[in-house]
Amino acid sequence: MNKMNVGVLGATGMVGQQFIRFLEGHPWFDLTWLGASERSAGKLYRDAAKWNLSGTAPGHIALTEVSAARPDSKNPAPKLLFSAMDASVATEIERAFAQAGHIVVSNSRNHRMEHDVPLLVPEVNADHLAVLDAQRRRFGWPGAIVTNPNCSTVTLTMALGPLKRYGIKRVVVTTMQAVSGAGYPGVPSMDILGNVVPYIGNEEEKMQEETQKILGSISADRIVSLDARLSAHCNRVAVIDGHTLAVSVELEARLSAEEIIQALNSYRGVPQKMQLPSAPARPVQYLEEPDRPQPRRDAERDGGMACFVGRLRPCPVLDWKFVALAHNTIRGAAGAAVLNAELMAAQGLLG
Amino acid sequence: MNKMNVGVLGATGMVGQQFIRFLEGHPWFDLTWLGASERSAGKLYRDAAKWNLSGTAPGHIALTEVSAARPDSKNPAPKLLFSAMDASVATEIERAFAQAGHIVVSNSRNHRMEHDVPLLVPEVNADHLAVLDAQRRRFGWPGAIVTNPNCSTVTLTMALGPLKRYGIKRVVVTTMQAVSGAGYPGVPSMDILGNVVPYIGNEEEKMQEETQKILGSISADRIVSLDARLSAHCNRVAVIDGHTLAVSVELEARLSAEEIIQALNSYRGVPQKMQLPSAPARPVQYLEEPDRPQPRRDAERDGGMACFVGRLRPCPVLDWKFVALAHNTIRGAAGAAVLNAELMAAQGLLG
Amino acid sequence: MNKMNVGVLGATGMVGQQFIRFLEGHPWFDLTWLGASERSAGKLYRDAAKWNLSGTAPGHIALTEVSAARPDSKNPAPKLLFSAMDASVATEIERAFAQAGHIVVSNSRNHRMEHDVPLLVPEVNADHLAVLDAQRRRFGWPGAIVTNPNCSTVTLTMALGPLKRYGIKRVVVTTMQAVSGAGYPGVPSMDILGNVVPYIGNEEEKMQEETQKILGSISADRIVSLDARLSAHCNRVAVIDGHTLAVSVELEARLSAEEIIQALNSYRGVPQKMQLPSAPARPVQYLEEPDRPQPRRDAERDGGMACFVGRLRPCPVLDWKFVALAHNTIRGAAGAAVLNAELMAAQGLLG
Amino acid sequence: MNKMNVGVLGATGMVGQQFIRFLEGHPWFDLTWLGASERSAGKLYRDAAKWNLSGTAPGHIALTEVSAARPDSKNPAPKLLFSAMDASVATEIERAFAQAGHIVVSNSRNHRMEHDVPLLVPEVNADHLAVLDAQRRRFGWPGAIVTNPNCSTVTLTMALGPLKRYGIKRVVVTTMQAVSGAGYPGVPSMDILGNVVPYIGNEEEKMQEETQKILGSISADRIVSLDARLSAHCNRVAVIDGHTLAVSVELEARLSAEEIIQALNSYRGVPQKMQLPSAPARPVQYLEEPDRPQPRRDAERDGGMACFVGRLRPCPVLDWKFVALAHNTIRGAAGAAVLNAELMAAQGLLG
Repeated sequence: MNKMNVGVLGATGMVGQQFIRFLEGHPWFDLTWLGASERSAGKLYRDAAKWNLSGTAPGHIALTEVSAARPDSKNPAPKLLFSAMDASVATEIERAFAQAGHIVVSNSRNHRMEHDVPLLVPEVNADHLAVLDAQRRRFGWPGAIVTNPNCSTVTLTMALGPLKRYGIKRVVVTTMQAVSGAGYPGVPSMDILGNVVPYIGNEEEKMQEETQKILGSISADRIVSLDARLSAHCNRVAVIDGHTLAVSVELEARLSAEEIIQALNSYRGVPQKMQLPSAPARPVQYLEEPDRPQPRRDAERDGGMACFVGRLRPCPVLDWKFVALAHNTIRGAAGAAVLNAELMAAQGLLG
Repeated sequence: MNKMNVGVLGATGMVGQQFIRFLEGHPWFDLTWLGASERSAGKLYRDAAKWNLSGTAPGHIALTEVSAARPDSKNPAPKLLFSAMDASVATEIERAFAQAGHIVVSNSRNHRMEHDVPLLVPEVNADHLAVLDAQRRRFGWPGAIVTNPNCSTVTLTMALGPLKRYGIKRVVVTTMQAVSGAGYPGVPSMDILGNVVPYIGNEEEKMQEETQKILGSISADRIVSLDARLSAHCNRVAVIDGHTLAVSVELEARLSAEEIIQALNSYRGVPQKMQLPSAPARPVQYLEEPDRPQPRRDAERDGGMACFVGRLRPCPVLDWKFVALAHNTIRGAAGAAVLNAELMAAQGLLG
Repeated sequence: MNKMNVGVLGATGMVGQQFIRFLEGHPWFDLTWLGASERSAGKLYRDAAKWNLSGTAPGHIALTEVSAARPDSKNPAPKLLFSAMDASVATEIERAFAQAGHIVVSNSRNHRMEHDVPLLVPEVNADHLAVLDAQRRRFGWPGAIVTNPNCSTVTLTMALGPLKRYGIKRVVVTTMQAVSGAGYPGVPSMDILGNVVPYIGNEEEKMQEETQKILGSISADRIVSLDARLSAHCNRVAVIDGHTLAVSVELEARLSAEEIIQALNSYRGVPQKMQLPSAPARPVQYLEEPDRPQPRRDAERDGGMACFVGRLRPCPVLDWKFVALAHNTIRGAAGAAVLNAELMAAQGLLG
Repeated sequence: MNKMNVGVLGATGMVGQQFIRFLEGHPWFDLTWLGASERSAGKLYRDAAKWNLSGTAPGHIALTEVSAARPDSKNPAPKLLFSAMDASVATEIERAFAQAGHIVVSNSRNHRMEHDVPLLVPEVNADHLAVLDAQRRRFGWPGAIVTNPNCSTVTLTMALGPLKRYGIKRVVVTTMQAVSGAGYPGVPSMDILGNVVPYIGNEEEKMQEETQKILGSISADRIVSLDARLSAHCNRVAVIDGHTLAVSVELEARLSAEEIIQALNSYRGVPQKMQLPSAPARPVQYLEEPDRPQPRRDAERDGGMACFVGRLRPCPVLDWKFVALAHNTIRGAAGAAVLNAELMAAQGLLG
């Protein structure tokens, strides 16, 4: 199969770098176009971006000329674009590309809560892609915008996905989030060394409403959020990668611990059935050790694309409590978007 | 006033060192006796203990000879003893000293859940000292054992104390606990650098049942635990001192945020009324900044004896959620026990 | 004695906050004036500055109105000004205030290497104040500028001060520097969590040339740098406060280890002789423990104003090697400048 | 080619786990035998060892029965054994296996300084294997013991290897070492969080003498250490993996910076020429970025088997200074030993 050319909008920032890293050697997609601000346009990537991940930028990317992040008929971008644009400009730029016929698979938050923009965790709600026709009608564009959730939301929804059919009524979740989620320079070291910051701007609201949407259903061409009550406490801790969540959940069904663990471990979604290249074989994995999952020891397992759950035990207030973990910049950002694009490719939606 | 001689049981360990540090220059108590295992007995303190706190052991303590931690009529210990004994031996040793007439003010967990042993947070339940007579009758000893709670429980009960009169029904709490709570050598650096360990053995059970006891009342010479439902998620994070708690709480009364903040800030207990030397002027302090309290920036304020609360906001699942913080080795251990002893002294119970 | 009013230039930044903290309750100086950029001028301090140190800004400071950092005859600043100005603007502003008759005691680097500007570590080179007359003649101003060195230089020169009379020939020093030295937001957490950054811009050059100047002497109204060879390797590590230095030194004299330790421990300078309020009783203290000094356990001792040395042992390449430590934001910044001002006050130079 | 069966002595400890991890999927060696203390013998590996690395122990290893770490003709160990034995018992056990005909490729320090035991960094001194005959004669055993150096020594000798032919006269090196070098539980978190410990027991002596031996030559069947002067300052920092070294070096030859960088980048040794499976293509790599190498960003590159050098600049005291980095548990421990065994296999010494 010929590879499909793809581009990255916002290629010089930290999420952009994660896209570049994640797309290295991808079997379906060939990264050939890098879009960034006017300030970077025209420069070689190595001169436009300070590489902040481990190692260095891949050699051919380092020597690629950065384009301006706007549709340009003389220098057309590939049809499929991953967006890592900053929220301050993503609305306008993503819409311009959708208008110009591009499929924009975005990690930015700007369009996530639109009722006709899929907010995908493909194992959980691949069916939400069905609203794309309504999106095209409403906006009158030939392209499309598809989003993935906030990094903490991904972790929570992957852990809740297997429980959805048992009726999720109420969830209290406390996050201990890695600093990489805040980008670069992001969290000052003076704030986080030997410290906990019990606040991340707007994160709790996003986590609550995004989770409800992802677990929701489609009605009359709209995505309707699940009517469950969620309460999030979001904290930043001195961890590089991997968001850890302490979750209490109340379900409609009465289940045993064994049934829940079985539901988690046997969970498979569309990405697994279609064997998408970035899909983890087992999207949710229950760890039996009493003190796991842990970000430093588990986040990078299985390519950083799985969600690890542990410590399931009864909750004296709601029904059950457990710990969940996923890699925030892979499964929670670049890998999430690439998996979304793979799903669309496999379903013929990139035509 | 003449100072009262006091001793420390388990003086060479980390909590023992915290007692030594906290008692330096105490206006009422003079630390003159150091008890430890037979292995240390007879040595000078500086040779028996590797000092793990900042700086060095106070000079006169360094040159004090360590005694064996057992009642010895030839070398009698002071009447008031602070116990930092390891749980593996605390039951026997503390009882032996109570039998020998000593007042044992213990930080160890062994006797905390006995129905006639006060588990004190003096601002919250100073009245629980009333069971000491029943304790003496049951055990038939002239002395007494009084305890302070686990470090995470202290933080929670100080934050809940001002709300008790509004009817505490349900609490979900997630802790992010400092490594100093685990003693020395305690948590291996390989476990916690850049990591979160979502498990602390037996901590959740202790936190749940101790909180219920502290918030409970006295009936027929027994302490009866409060019939509230509590669920704790306990985690270790890369912080040296200061336990941070994310708390959701359901109350019987309907209150506004302003009323709750007013209740927190105006809370005063017996230690404040009696102006005990180690009592913080304001035991609970609400911080208005959106990202506080934080362990590194707030735990040491007010001598490490206050509880700081912040981020009060409605909880979509229970009624309210907030963040609470206290210094785990001061207010949560050595300082807690010393305040207990000050309370007993002021009430004439050390006679 | 009436207290002297003083001001801080650059009061909103992190070093400015350290000045505010250090001057709280100072017996000689009363902080009454806060200067900052035009953007902050006219605001209350609490609105102009985000407080980054522990706790909160002192209450009366929080309510002080910030002035613009320029001489203003209608709203005159106090004669004595501590400067925490950013290097990008310090040259012009400090000179303007000296021209207007102020004594500017600066922590900024801009004037440090001028031959007629004292670069003071008062224990080591209090005599360098003698060049102030030459400075006034050259610049034609009634005021004066006096500086303290870079935070890593302070630590090194305090440790070398007692050895100066034995002839310092060559020094190789490797620093492990705390993040607080870089201000706020300063070092991104992504750069330093679980990491070492073996580079601090221009730090090695500053450390080399400043040390030579401080250890130098006065000749014909100029400060002449010591002709010793120094090589610095500067690194940033995941420490909040306290710079640790690994030092190898070659001396002209042959000394025993005991003689060196004696020289360190018995070292006293003008600040000790004049009993300046911020002077540590023993400016250099040798620690006998095999694994000390350590930043977290020793930097804050003695008010953060002393230099701790340990691990003296023969160096197979030069003569001796040892470890030195001082608190970089107290002895290495705010405390250094205040001690300089105390020295000038005691010598009648604040007229 | 049939794979060769191999075993690990001390398989349950942290270095043993690193051997297991490193040998997974090895093209030449098949790990079939796990030796440990009598206490572990007879248990399945998963029950005998608490896995401390990321993820979990490989499935087939988890189910392997642990053998006692002593020669046993009824349950013979493979001929090639990797030793991760604790130094307290390694002398006796390694000798017993050599006596029984095994090739013991050891990471333990016990035999490193024997004049007829190769202390190998194969790129630097593969020729030292020539003393094995003398070793066999002296000890009268059919087997052999071969060692790799201390983790900090590996980093230094790889960086100095390319410079050896220019005459290494004097070296001052300061290390900033990762906690994983101390094993598990190893460094207590109370010692290293937000701290530097400027002391590692015996590390400086080992680093000095091992480096001299590795850079030495063979004379009359003995390895004769290089007559260069080395001074090491060893420090522990809050890093998980990767030792960072600040090095000053004096050479006999006058070189330009370009010549040194060229010497580093073009360095190839026997492992590269023989294309050993674990040999890095480029054993020493010079990084041009001003702030590299860094442990978190560079240690794991190239499989953790290369040494990264950066920041070459003139040293005012010796000739040149630079920063060097290698992965302490891969290139500095398990990977080092496996590369030694590969070298011996390729040279027909495992016969």
